[in-house]
Amino acid sequence: MKLYELCGDDKRRFSPYCWRTRMALAIKQIEVEAASVGFTEIPGICDGAVKTVPTLETDGSVIVDSFEIARHLDEVHAANPLFRGEAAEAHCRLIQGWADTAVVAALASMIVVDVWSVLRPQDKDYFRTTREGRFGKTLEEFQAGREGRVAGFNSLTLAPARRALARAQWLGGDQPDYADCILFGTLMWPHVVSDFPVLEDGPLMDWFRRCLELMPDEAEVKALLAA
Amino acid sequence: MKLYELCGDDKRRFSPYCWRTRMALAIKQIEVEAASVGFTEIPGICDGAVKTVPTLETDGSVIVDSFEIARHLDEVHAANPLFRGEAAEAHCRLIQGWADTAVVAALASMIVVDVWSVLRPQDKDYFRTTREGRFGKTLEEFQAGREGRVAGFNSLTLAPARRALARAQWLGGDQPDYADCILFGTLMWPHVVSDFPVLEDGPLMDWFRRCLELMPDEAEVKALLAA
Repeated sequence: MKLYELCGDDKRRFSPYCWRTRMALAIKQIEVEAASVGFTEIPGICDGAVKTVPTLETDGSVIVDSFEIARHLDEVHAANPLFRGEAAEAHCRLIQGWADTAVVAALASMIVVDVWSVLRPQDKDYFRTTREGRFGKTLEEFQAGREGRVAGFNSLTLAPARRALARAQWLGGDQPDYADCILFGTLMWPHVVSDFPVLEDGPLMDWFRRCLELMPDEAEVKALLAA
Repeated sequence: MKLYELCGDDKRRFSPYCWRTRMALAIKQIEVEAASVGFTEIPGICDGAVKTVPTLETDGSVIVDSFEIARHLDEVHAANPLFRGEAAEAHCRLIQGWADTAVVAALASMIVVDVWSVLRPQDKDYFRTTREGRFGKTLEEFQAGREGRVAGFNSLTLAPARRALARAQWLGGDQPDYADCILFGTLMWPHVVSDFPVLEDGPLMDWFRRCLELMPDEAEVKALLAA
């Protein structure tokens, strides 16, 4: 298996979707060959067949999308399931929808300039142009005043996860599952690209550190655990 | 079993939390004795032991909170489970957190005056005073401009559920589970108290009607299905 992941200028892996797959692989204890690509290199991989990463190449087939990769991992390797049952998998679609809209939007407004800063030189224009078109303002304008948004991000945006963690150690209950991968990956995005602290101390930070401790001993993770 | 539910002036049942329990009972095909109470009557039920409804009285014990009632129903009657597995139950805590924060807040800003309108006369002051204290403005000011918030409610607030329903008939997958009860109950709140349409036509409205069709043939439900 070969996993294509997004990377920045110093090979820093910052994609929330790729980190979801990384945690899924850690839970399942599956090793893969890793291939880092920049934004503008994606059209050149897998014979031009894919537009996004993570992408998993395995036995001649190509699996695109972090959720589909997770389903595939459960299919080829039943131990340590990411989806314990059909209901749990359906719920993860909703939880992913929540992370990809509410959580990503709130995070983007706090770190988008920092994301741009770690990109490879040849990716910076692409990123700035597409995002500024979406936001209708410059990256710097979009991120301005972020200090005032941290409290609301923790108290309101992340309230659903905090409430779940008041009852259990993991979003998946007594063991981590793909719900944990989804939110962990999403929160790795700010933690890998930015020194700006988006997560306040408390039960959610404790859970985030538990997730980090599950991960293999890689550069990005080690630096965060040491912090 | 006796179920205490919140009601308005014409015995109209409008509580999102009580409708979650109603749908849970419908899925499990369990019948209960119903008792309607107004806000200010709650301290008088169950010997003053409870502060909220729904409350279920059964065999001398009192179960408070819609989530705990759902867990109890699965315990006493294994068929038609509301929680298919421990992971699914943990996910429902997060999904409930999402519904109770993001969805309820968006709905409140569109229907809070309508809620006040259907209350029993002796409950109106209590409701207005507590809510205006919370909002820092009058109910009418809080609801003003609601027409401009419908599109964002459907496209952004409800995006997580819409994405899940793009893959499955129910939020629980191929059959309804407590995730469906949570969002269905939440959306019954505007539908029971208000003529203002908060839900746009589309897959989510189709799902809402599928939920209504599961329910027993009761006054509130019949009126909505006929609409």
